[in-house]
Amino acid sequence: MTYCVGLKLDRGLVFAADTRTNAGVDNIATYKKLHVWEEPGERVITLLSAGNLAITQAVVSLLSEHITSADNDRATLLTAKTMFQVARLVGSAVREVKEIDGEALATSAESFFVTFILGGQIEGEEPRMFQIYAAGNFIEVAEDTPFLQIGEHKYGKPILDRVTRSDMRLGEAAKLVLLSFDSTLRSNLSVGTPIDMLLYNKDTFSTERQVRIEQDDPYFQKLSHGWSEKLRDAFGELDEFDV
Amino acid sequence: MTYCVGLKLDRGLVFAADTRTNAGVDNIATYKKLHVWEEPGERVITLLSAGNLAITQAVVSLLSEHITSADNDRATLLTAKTMFQVARLVGSAVREVKEIDGEALATSAESFFVTFILGGQIEGEEPRMFQIYAAGNFIEVAEDTPFLQIGEHKYGKPILDRVTRSDMRLGEAAKLVLLSFDSTLRSNLSVGTPIDMLLYNKDTFSTERQVRIEQDDPYFQKLSHGWSEKLRDAFGELDEFDV
Repeated sequence: MTYCVGLKLDRGLVFAADTRTNAGVDNIATYKKLHVWEEPGERVITLLSAGNLAITQAVVSLLSEHITSADNDRATLLTAKTMFQVARLVGSAVREVKEIDGEALATSAESFFVTFILGGQIEGEEPRMFQIYAAGNFIEVAEDTPFLQIGEHKYGKPILDRVTRSDMRLGEAAKLVLLSFDSTLRSNLSVGTPIDMLLYNKDTFSTERQVRIEQDDPYFQKLSHGWSEKLRDAFGELDEFDV
Repeated sequence: MTYCVGLKLDRGLVFAADTRTNAGVDNIATYKKLHVWEEPGERVITLLSAGNLAITQAVVSLLSEHITSADNDRATLLTAKTMFQVARLVGSAVREVKEIDGEALATSAESFFVTFILGGQIEGEEPRMFQIYAAGNFIEVAEDTPFLQIGEHKYGKPILDRVTRSDMRLGEAAKLVLLSFDSTLRSNLSVGTPIDMLLYNKDTFSTERQVRIEQDDPYFQKLSHGWSEKLRDAFGELDEFDV
């Protein structure tokens, strides 16, 4: 399992992904699920992945290989003109991998399961964010629901539902995302630290606010304990049920 | 889907169940999933059900029919000596229904899916609580985790994890359970009000604290809004993330 969140806010984008992969609870490992491509000053593209690791790695490798290949006619993540075009490139890469591996997976009774959150900004456009499905098609985030989640999304959704606002500062949003992760980490062993985060400030075309948060990170620890305490206090202040 | 919660606390038991059943989002209905049998002053037995409605209804009907049948040698919910024996009776009823309907369900590619929370007290014993599976076997709640959830449990689990304490008053626990329901109702359409609740005070052998909470219940409304506000306040008081 996996847990990834993307927020599209007025001031930019926030991405977070856990790093746990597992083939059974007795076989876990740490893999990066937050992938970044950039052309400083011109574009920043971020891809979060959930699902079968062999498939997501193949998609990421294909996208990267296309960038360095000699075929200059083909648009790549670094040459596509819009984020919509980038989303289509990712969708095509998913379909390419499905063509190669899909049948063999099916005969092994393995499903072709994969989902991505794609976000970023290309000069001339506003920041945009998409969710890309295993079929290679996708949706774009709209204003009414400014966040996307993939993987184990249920435990961490109530806090996002109640607190997310489009006009949040990115640091506030990052705090929110970490609380959402904290709820998930407590309940699902197949989601695990470290957590990779990227805070992208609109129009900066820079990925300098990228960080990896370990389990014992002092801020994360303090946040988690502080939140539990405040929740209990808030709970105590509400009227008791009486019947 | 369904959401049911049972808490086993020092002072007694708290049960809550939603009432939505659905066969597709275009076909929803309201059915009671909290069932009570009692012998005032001697025993109180409560069963919460999740899963296929035809199966859960058949189990409940069988248990009730056995009580009124002429076969006086067979133990029933009202004559079993311990809650462990009651749990075995429920398990037997599940197996009886499986024997009758299981094969036909399988040939229609319908799974025999059902889970129960059983709780109550019989004079001479402490209150006890069990989770009963589709196979008719069961587990009993232990002290380390004093609550059970069946159905759509993920959205409402973080608040239970953080706030539940065995020494809570029942009214406090009922407030907690309603907040857990509120988080679930916001995210999953297949869980719906009204919510049936029973607060059972240890050694009373009485079910008088039973209530149905409608969507527009003033307490529930106030609780839901108050909680959202307090969460946002608590969130605002925590240090922002900085990178």
